[in-house]
Amino acid sequence: MTLPAPLTGVVPPVCTPLTPDGEVDVPSLTRLVDHLVEGGVDGLFVLGSSSESAFLTDRQRRLVVETVTGHVSGGLPVLAGAIDMTTPRVLDHVRSVTEAGADAVVVTAPFYTRTHPAETARHYRLVASRSPVPVLAYDIPVAVHTKLGADLVLELAAEGVLAGLKDSSGDQGAFRDVVTGARAHPAVTGFSVLTGSELVVDTALAMGADGAVPGLANVDPHGYVRLTRLCRAGDWERARAEQERLCTLFGMVRAGDAGRMGAGSSALGAFKAALHLRGVIACPATAEPQIPLSAEETAVVGKFLAGAGLL
Amino acid sequence: MTLPAPLTGVVPPVCTPLTPDGEVDVPSLTRLVDHLVEGGVDGLFVLGSSSESAFLTDRQRRLVVETVTGHVSGGLPVLAGAIDMTTPRVLDHVRSVTEAGADAVVVTAPFYTRTHPAETARHYRLVASRSPVPVLAYDIPVAVHTKLGADLVLELAAEGVLAGLKDSSGDQGAFRDVVTGARAHPAVTGFSVLTGSELVVDTALAMGADGAVPGLANVDPHGYVRLTRLCRAGDWERARAEQERLCTLFGMVRAGDAGRMGAGSSALGAFKAALHLRGVIACPATAEPQIPLSAEETAVVGKFLAGAGLL
Amino acid sequence: MTLPAPLTGVVPPVCTPLTPDGEVDVPSLTRLVDHLVEGGVDGLFVLGSSSESAFLTDRQRRLVVETVTGHVSGGLPVLAGAIDMTTPRVLDHVRSVTEAGADAVVVTAPFYTRTHPAETARHYRLVASRSPVPVLAYDIPVAVHTKLGADLVLELAAEGVLAGLKDSSGDQGAFRDVVTGARAHPAVTGFSVLTGSELVVDTALAMGADGAVPGLANVDPHGYVRLTRLCRAGDWERARAEQERLCTLFGMVRAGDAGRMGAGSSALGAFKAALHLRGVIACPATAEPQIPLSAEETAVVGKFLAGAGLL
Amino acid sequence: MTLPAPLTGVVPPVCTPLTPDGEVDVPSLTRLVDHLVEGGVDGLFVLGSSSESAFLTDRQRRLVVETVTGHVSGGLPVLAGAIDMTTPRVLDHVRSVTEAGADAVVVTAPFYTRTHPAETARHYRLVASRSPVPVLAYDIPVAVHTKLGADLVLELAAEGVLAGLKDSSGDQGAFRDVVTGARAHPAVTGFSVLTGSELVVDTALAMGADGAVPGLANVDPHGYVRLTRLCRAGDWERARAEQERLCTLFGMVRAGDAGRMGAGSSALGAFKAALHLRGVIACPATAEPQIPLSAEETAVVGKFLAGAGLL
Repeated sequence: MTLPAPLTGVVPPVCTPLTPDGEVDVPSLTRLVDHLVEGGVDGLFVLGSSSESAFLTDRQRRLVVETVTGHVSGGLPVLAGAIDMTTPRVLDHVRSVTEAGADAVVVTAPFYTRTHPAETARHYRLVASRSPVPVLAYDIPVAVHTKLGADLVLELAAEGVLAGLKDSSGDQGAFRDVVTGARAHPAVTGFSVLTGSELVVDTALAMGADGAVPGLANVDPHGYVRLTRLCRAGDWERARAEQERLCTLFGMVRAGDAGRMGAGSSALGAFKAALHLRGVIACPATAEPQIPLSAEETAVVGKFLAGAGLL
Repeated sequence: MTLPAPLTGVVPPVCTPLTPDGEVDVPSLTRLVDHLVEGGVDGLFVLGSSSESAFLTDRQRRLVVETVTGHVSGGLPVLAGAIDMTTPRVLDHVRSVTEAGADAVVVTAPFYTRTHPAETARHYRLVASRSPVPVLAYDIPVAVHTKLGADLVLELAAEGVLAGLKDSSGDQGAFRDVVTGARAHPAVTGFSVLTGSELVVDTALAMGADGAVPGLANVDPHGYVRLTRLCRAGDWERARAEQERLCTLFGMVRAGDAGRMGAGSSALGAFKAALHLRGVIACPATAEPQIPLSAEETAVVGKFLAGAGLL
Repeated sequence: MTLPAPLTGVVPPVCTPLTPDGEVDVPSLTRLVDHLVEGGVDGLFVLGSSSESAFLTDRQRRLVVETVTGHVSGGLPVLAGAIDMTTPRVLDHVRSVTEAGADAVVVTAPFYTRTHPAETARHYRLVASRSPVPVLAYDIPVAVHTKLGADLVLELAAEGVLAGLKDSSGDQGAFRDVVTGARAHPAVTGFSVLTGSELVVDTALAMGADGAVPGLANVDPHGYVRLTRLCRAGDWERARAEQERLCTLFGMVRAGDAGRMGAGSSALGAFKAALHLRGVIACPATAEPQIPLSAEETAVVGKFLAGAGLL
Repeated sequence: MTLPAPLTGVVPPVCTPLTPDGEVDVPSLTRLVDHLVEGGVDGLFVLGSSSESAFLTDRQRRLVVETVTGHVSGGLPVLAGAIDMTTPRVLDHVRSVTEAGADAVVVTAPFYTRTHPAETARHYRLVASRSPVPVLAYDIPVAVHTKLGADLVLELAAEGVLAGLKDSSGDQGAFRDVVTGARAHPAVTGFSVLTGSELVVDTALAMGADGAVPGLANVDPHGYVRLTRLCRAGDWERARAEQERLCTLFGMVRAGDAGRMGAGSSALGAFKAALHLRGVIACPATAEPQIPLSAEETAVVGKFLAGAGLL
């Protein structure tokens, strides 16, 4: 299907359920997609950071996209990450995920290498020139160790290189520059500005953002859908209450002991534990070399779910 | 062939010559290998950072390994980088490069993800358990944004997980901890400690390091081979003079304008320009999205070569 | 005067006008205070980062506080930064600024040293135990290179160690954790949560923040006062419009050429140029070793003022 | 006395003994100076990072310099740190320490602020123009969060702005650029290049460095003096053995539990515990807000001393 321009609403970065031996658990993945669709989401983002894209082999990545596009069969747009170090490798992923049916690709700045902003621009121009579907920029400094400047994003938007931005930078000032800059720029139309935050969706939408890509929406899609609808209706007071409820629920990402595992392992482990406890996926395993949550840490996740009325 | 234990001497990270349209230039690659072998190097490291591994597609990576192992056919050891974000993806590269004949694999800590040291250890243990050839750790914080601790390296060496270390961290104090720790530890035998620096090979060897993996050895293999032989002979005064000559030559890595391109583009562009000017490779192109050196910047590289008597 | 608990509204970090030879320009400073008071601000924060506190000698710092407290003589609360590397040095500043009449002190985490969170907590406990006035934490990772965790801030708030937070971290998710955590915690009362951002004051207040400490309020205090009043009235639509106007005006901070000066020099130079152009201060000089704006760069600042109707 | 040009040998960054209530322990300080002088050191560096300069009040800093210059009364050169955020504040310290008899000042790049290299150059030029004694640059990125480029250091050396460099950057490649650059530059004479490392003194001297400023020399001055004499004599084999013995001893800096305190607290706590155990200083207290070593951690320090034959 054609990507809505702009894409709006809730577009969860879909977790990738795994079997105990690390293979993609296809039945769990389709159940998760059903869970999200029933929750009312507006699109699906597969192979993002919350999807453990960095941990999936090329074969597994392809299987994920095929499974999801096949399952929703055009019912809602499927965006796919094409996450790799540089242009030539990203282009291979673009080819693979679009052959598998993705409606748009989501691409970070180069990483591993030390890249000048002019090279990041060149990267996006090359990717867009060879991609059969729209390209969204994925700004995630915690992973790629550079920040996409608002000026660069707007320049590429005006050129038609970028169709949108998924902002996981946490920098709301720069995010706002993109939101208002995109609105003000005569050459920018249909550009989607999406926040990757779980915690400031209400204020991002209040600024004029188009939607959100919160990892926690795997666990509670209904909550985020309610939240964006309240925002769209201008009911900021109830939106704030819903957002604060979700902020409390988000506390689950610190369930894992920081002395024993990385912050990512704790957060992804918590999302998967929650999906398992809610009966959506068959196994809470995360990919290697992530340290799994212990039984006690999983119980903490359960308490967060119970507190939110999700068990 | 079996990897020497320890591997010693000069093991250049082999540049990957490209055609103007970004394909691997196989004839240039074999000429470069001949140039290095004639220079007297002790091994070849393909698919490292100086090889633009981060920019090569899987198909190109495979072609590089096959070309080099086929060309040297056991004449000297070929190490291959298996550079990717996490364990499952690294294992795919390990499979590919060893099928293509690599005698050892060189593996970084996970990147893109935020990884706890315990997860990095788990990563190396898993990779080693499934690799048919020895595994060397590649410590390159500028790329992966974490530093391998000396304690962790020594622990994995003592377990037999790691066969060596390529240290591109620039931290000579920590490097020394590994060198002396490996020598002192009864369970560590045949472990190779290699510096990735161009600039402190003499002092690294004086500390007891086994060898060096300097990118500049592409340009001047004879110089680095002379240097390590002088060190081995204990002729530190002449070693220092040779090292200082190479430090001056290394100034070429700043030929590219830092206002216009990344530091990596400048350095790799300079190495390739030098190889082109010296008649070793057919084309100085670097991979996308790196900004190429201008004609003037290339002329600066030429002056460095002339100053070193290499033109 | 006693610090309001919570302190709310607009509390500008007061610029420190300097003479051409780098001395505090007392008449300009009092004119600037008058300009801010007439603008309707709710308090004054002297010796903050926008005050060039890092550049002022102890004698100059003291003179600034005496001048401002003497001039407002209790008309509105005066907060003073006590910015230095560690506890003993901070305590000397606390003594000095409170002798000079400050109603509260604003204190960062230790810097220059590498400090554990437990040491940061110890730091605040010691400072508060010896300060005759309330202590606000100043979270400014760009300067001190650590982030104050929301948990730590709330723990110290509950203990009565901290009376408030000035958040210049840019991390709105963590900021929200403090806002909602402070509201929810039974032991926390009268705690002021203030954003240091120029760009997201409306959304910070929408989250429940008490006020703002925007450097740009030196230039346009009326704008920020209007903005916070619109927020307090729940008129979010007009608040957003006012905020966006101020975001546009804030573009002046990039007037200075980033190839020639630091980002701080450009921003502080722009604020002072604007105050000079508006006739508030006699001289736009910034402290050494900051590079001053050129005439052309100053003209750019003038255009921003003109565009905002402030000339 | 006039600073030797170049200053060579061992110049310990003198620890600042404190009383249990945090005051400078003058008798212990003079005993420590005697211990160092008897150890054969070539100069003393007070108010450096290992001196807890960042934790000392201005009054305490002055007392330290007066005590040490008064005690050695010209017997050997006394360098004093003038550690503060920016030029005007550094100049106040320069005045104070030179009035107190310092023979040279040691100055970092600006910190807390974000500074452009052109501003760092301006900083050193201003400080040197107003300092009655020679100025050495102190390159310590872990504290100031910028690195002094070799080009900048050499430019300022050639101008006569800088009389030397204390390099605590850990980057031996850049260090070598300064060493060889200073030797090669016709306008640079008498410039002192000193390493701040404990671990690579032998190789730094082998490169041509003039001396070392190792914090561990407080604990074992005889060892570092022996080491530099062996280096000067070209006896690299015995130098290496002595250096390795000191590297082992340096392991004491990790005595403190990293889960409980900062790395600086552990290292400074260990040095002071060692000086206390060796009977040089009366009390091992470190300044606030550093967490002190526990009795068990202190016992670990004792084992390192015993292992080195220093108890």
